[in-house]
Amino acid sequence: MSRYVQRLHDRQTRFGNGICVGIDPRMEQLPPGIVAAARARGGSPLEQAAAAFEEFSLRILDVVADLVPVVKPQAAFFEELGPAGMLALARVNRAARAKGLVVICDAKRGDIGTTAEAYARGYLAGADPEAAPWAADALTVNPYLGRDTLEPFLKVAKERGAGLYVLVRTSNPQSGTFQDPVTDGRTIYERVADLVEEWSAGLAGDDGYGLVGAVVGATYPQELVALRARMPHVPILVPGYGAQGGTARDVAAAFDARGVGAVVNSSRGIIFAHSRPEFRERFGPDRWEDAVRLAVEEMRADLASARA
Amino acid sequence: MSRYVQRLHDRQTRFGNGICVGIDPRMEQLPPGIVAAARARGGSPLEQAAAAFEEFSLRILDVVADLVPVVKPQAAFFEELGPAGMLALARVNRAARAKGLVVICDAKRGDIGTTAEAYARGYLAGADPEAAPWAADALTVNPYLGRDTLEPFLKVAKERGAGLYVLVRTSNPQSGTFQDPVTDGRTIYERVADLVEEWSAGLAGDDGYGLVGAVVGATYPQELVALRARMPHVPILVPGYGAQGGTARDVAAAFDARGVGAVVNSSRGIIFAHSRPEFRERFGPDRWEDAVRLAVEEMRADLASARA
Repeated sequence: MSRYVQRLHDRQTRFGNGICVGIDPRMEQLPPGIVAAARARGGSPLEQAAAAFEEFSLRILDVVADLVPVVKPQAAFFEELGPAGMLALARVNRAARAKGLVVICDAKRGDIGTTAEAYARGYLAGADPEAAPWAADALTVNPYLGRDTLEPFLKVAKERGAGLYVLVRTSNPQSGTFQDPVTDGRTIYERVADLVEEWSAGLAGDDGYGLVGAVVGATYPQELVALRARMPHVPILVPGYGAQGGTARDVAAAFDARGVGAVVNSSRGIIFAHSRPEFRERFGPDRWEDAVRLAVEEMRADLASARA
Repeated sequence: MSRYVQRLHDRQTRFGNGICVGIDPRMEQLPPGIVAAARARGGSPLEQAAAAFEEFSLRILDVVADLVPVVKPQAAFFEELGPAGMLALARVNRAARAKGLVVICDAKRGDIGTTAEAYARGYLAGADPEAAPWAADALTVNPYLGRDTLEPFLKVAKERGAGLYVLVRTSNPQSGTFQDPVTDGRTIYERVADLVEEWSAGLAGDDGYGLVGAVVGATYPQELVALRARMPHVPILVPGYGAQGGTARDVAAAFDARGVGAVVNSSRGIIFAHSRPEFRERFGPDRWEDAVRLAVEEMRADLASARA
C-alpha cells in the first residue's frame, strides 16, 4: 500500500471532495492589502513580491486546510522571484504540510541519473517533511528524457512514501505537438500512459492505486475518459477545470466509483475569486478570503452534482 | 543578429575552443579542504553543503574564466540543498557573468503560457545580468508540453538577447523511450529538431545562427551528424563527452567549418579532475585547481586534434 495514496485518499474521504487548490500567486492579481503590507516592509522589489506571495499563500492555506485534501504550489511563480521567492516556496510547502494538507509541488522537473535523483531528494519529503528542503508529498515530473529520467524519481518516492505525477496529456492548446503523434498505433502520450500504468500496477496496494500518478488535462475530455480506462492503477491529477474551460462533467470521468483516484486542480478561479465578476461586488477587496471559501464550496458542489 | 550567438561566438573565437564546463558539484567528490572550510563555518548540513558548493564553484570559475567560453551550472544539485543551495546558484551564475563567461543554466524547465514565461523571466537575463535573478545567458528547456511551452521562452529570449537550448536528443541510455518512436517518417526528436530549426532559421543573423539551440548528446554520434545537417541554423550544446563515453571525433561533427555553432560540455572530467587516476598522484588534494586547468587544456587539445 502506497503511503502517499493512503494519505491522499484518507483526506479525500474525510473532506468528501477531490479538490486541489493551485497556489499560483501573481503580483498584479493579489488583494491590494497584501501588496501594500509587503511594500511597507521594504527590501528589493523581488523581496517585496516574495513577502507578498508568502503572506497570500499562507492565508489561502488557512482558508482551505479544512475544506480540501490537496494544494499544488506552482514553483515557477516563486522561482521567477529568485532566491527570496524560493525561500517563500519552501515556507509555504512546510506550512501546508503542518496544516495536514497534501502538497503536490508543480515544478515539472526532469533530468537523468543522479541529476534526477537530486531533484527527487530535494522535493520529495514523503512521510517526513524534514526529509527534503522543499517538503512536498508529491512532484510533477516531465517524461521526455525517457525511462531513466523517471526511475530515479520512482526510487526516491518509494523510499520516502512520496508520490509522483508524470505529465501524460497536458491541458494547453498545443499539447499535441509532441504528445499526439502516432507511433506503433499508440500516440506518444499513450506510450507515457502505458509506462506509468505498468509501474503503478506493480506497486498498487489494497485500494488498487500505485504511487506513480499522471497529469491529464480536463480540456481533452474524451482522452481523459480513455486514459482513466487505460491507467486503472494510476492516481490522476486533472488541471484545466474552470478558467481553462474544463467542466465538472468533463472531470467526473477521472474518479472511480468511490470518488477517489483523482484530484481536480483549480488555481485562478479559487485563489483570485475576489476578482471574479460575480464575487467582486459582493465581497470587495478586504473580504477576499470569504470569496476563496465560497469558490471552494461552489466547486465542491459542482463536482458533486456531476458525479451524482 | 542574435546577441546571444554573437557573444558566444566572440568568446569561442577568442579562446579558440568550444568547451563548456559543467558545474555539477557533489559533496562526496569535493576537495577535502573545501568541505572542511564549509563545515567550520557552521550552520545546518544543507547550509554547509551550499557554502561548499559556492566556494568550489567560484574557484572553478577563477580557473576557467580565461580558458573557455562557457560554463553550465546544473540547477538540480543546488536545488537539492533547498533555499541555501538556490542562493548559492544565483551567486555562482552572477559571478560567472561578472567574469565574462557565458552562463547556460541547465535547469531543463518546461511549462505552459504565463507559467513558462515566469521561468523564462526568472532565468534569462540576456544582455543585462540584473534583468533576471538567476542571471543566465541561456537556459535548457524541455519541449514535451508542445509548441506553446516553447513560445513564451522564445519571446523572453528575443526581448532580452538571451539563448535557449531545447532538449532534442539527450545523452542518457534510455533517451529513446519517448524520443525515438517513429511517427510520420520522423522520430519525435526529429520533429523537435525541425521546429527548433524553423525558429532559428527565421531568427538567424549574418553568421547563420538563431538563438534557439538544441541539446544533442555525444553518445549517439551518427544522430549528431544527422541532426547537425538537419538544423543548420541551430547552436548545439553537446553533453556526453568524456565520462559518458563521447569522443572528440564524435563531437567534431557538431562544429561548422569556422569552429563555431556548437559547444561541448564536460562536467566531472574537468571539475573533479583531481580524482582522475592519472592526476591523483601528480597533484594531490591541495592542487586540485591545477588538475582542473590541465583537464581543460587536455580537452582543448583533444577537440582540436579531432577537427584537424
